[in-house]
Amino acid sequence: MDFRLEDIDDAEIERRLSVVEPLTDAVRDLVDAVIRTEMPDEDLHAAQTAIEAVVGTLRTKQRDGGFGVPFTPDMRGMPWGNAVVGARNAVAPPLHIDARDGIAECEMTLGAAYEGPGGCVHGGVASLVLDQMAGEAASTGTTPSFTGTLTVRYLRPTLLGRLRARAEVESVEGRKTFVRAYIADDEGPTVEATAIMIAPRSNPAVRP
Amino acid sequence: MDFRLEDIDDAEIERRLSVVEPLTDAVRDLVDAVIRTEMPDEDLHAAQTAIEAVVGTLRTKQRDGGFGVPFTPDMRGMPWGNAVVGARNAVAPPLHIDARDGIAECEMTLGAAYEGPGGCVHGGVASLVLDQMAGEAASTGTTPSFTGTLTVRYLRPTLLGRLRARAEVESVEGRKTFVRAYIADDEGPTVEATAIMIAPRSNPAVRP
Repeated sequence: MDFRLEDIDDAEIERRLSVVEPLTDAVRDLVDAVIRTEMPDEDLHAAQTAIEAVVGTLRTKQRDGGFGVPFTPDMRGMPWGNAVVGARNAVAPPLHIDARDGIAECEMTLGAAYEGPGGCVHGGVASLVLDQMAGEAASTGTTPSFTGTLTVRYLRPTLLGRLRARAEVESVEGRKTFVRAYIADDEGPTVEATAIMIAPRSNPAVRP
Repeated sequence: MDFRLEDIDDAEIERRLSVVEPLTDAVRDLVDAVIRTEMPDEDLHAAQTAIEAVVGTLRTKQRDGGFGVPFTPDMRGMPWGNAVVGARNAVAPPLHIDARDGIAECEMTLGAAYEGPGGCVHGGVASLVLDQMAGEAASTGTTPSFTGTLTVRYLRPTLLGRLRARAEVESVEGRKTFVRAYIADDEGPTVEATAIMIAPRSNPAVRP
């Protein structure tokens, strides 16, 4: 968890996002299209060749390892590579989470790329979402929280489509924050979770 | 969880996989490249345009909704759209799980697309992997198992890179199967889990 500072202002952040967000959205669209396409083999081969050419260009200059979580001078983290919320990461739906005062909420659409049983959200994807939600509810300001224990209870199948999620801090004891969370469809919760989140002894958002 | 039969033999399965697996691998490579690229904006714009053209072709003919889990005549499920193991799903690493006699094992490489804290596997990705592993350990023959409760304990950070996972059935009580699982690096387990898996009353792999 290396500390990396990016000395950029809000305007530069917006400018960079205006380039990478539509690119990542196009890749998300591609992931979905590859799962669902019924085109003949020759079109799939041509698609592969075209994608490999794009990869070749993008890799001409690239960072080593993951994107990491660089911080701005005012200690705002930019988790653009994050697997759940990352603006540059097509694995992420991405979730746009509204978090404040110990409560995190979001609406999301989970499509073909998040399937487990036919027509249903993968149980592990539900836990992935709930882990992130719990983390956002428990994190305050520049102090992050890491998951200590996550317990997920599956109440009934979660159908692919429009869903919402909510997490709320129940109590805090020293470095431990206890969070309750759920994913719901129009009929109510389908999956619920409790999490014990841990604040690190040394805060990676504090400049060394 | 609709039942869908695909009347194809092993040779046809292999033929289809020989087309979609390299295509999906190219998309996984693209997901990684978009996270890590440091190329200038004009190249990112050009990449977006090229990807959108591929999506347009692939969507000319596509199925509605997710890929689902079609079955072969001998009742083998083909979870090619699955978010963890799907051969057509670039969100999936994918895991190649060896499962038999109540034990599931796999080796995997989790790169930039699975990051949470800088340099580390996202806690929710660990739970996603462990959920799938538990399901594969608990499922026998054509009888699937769905997660009832999943409890994940994070022992220490899991660094991005080469990892292995293992799940083992501990006991069976009626429709409930109790499973223990972990993810490990070279130093041993980093995340461990217990799961209560539930066999459905009606088996979707049994033809109606």
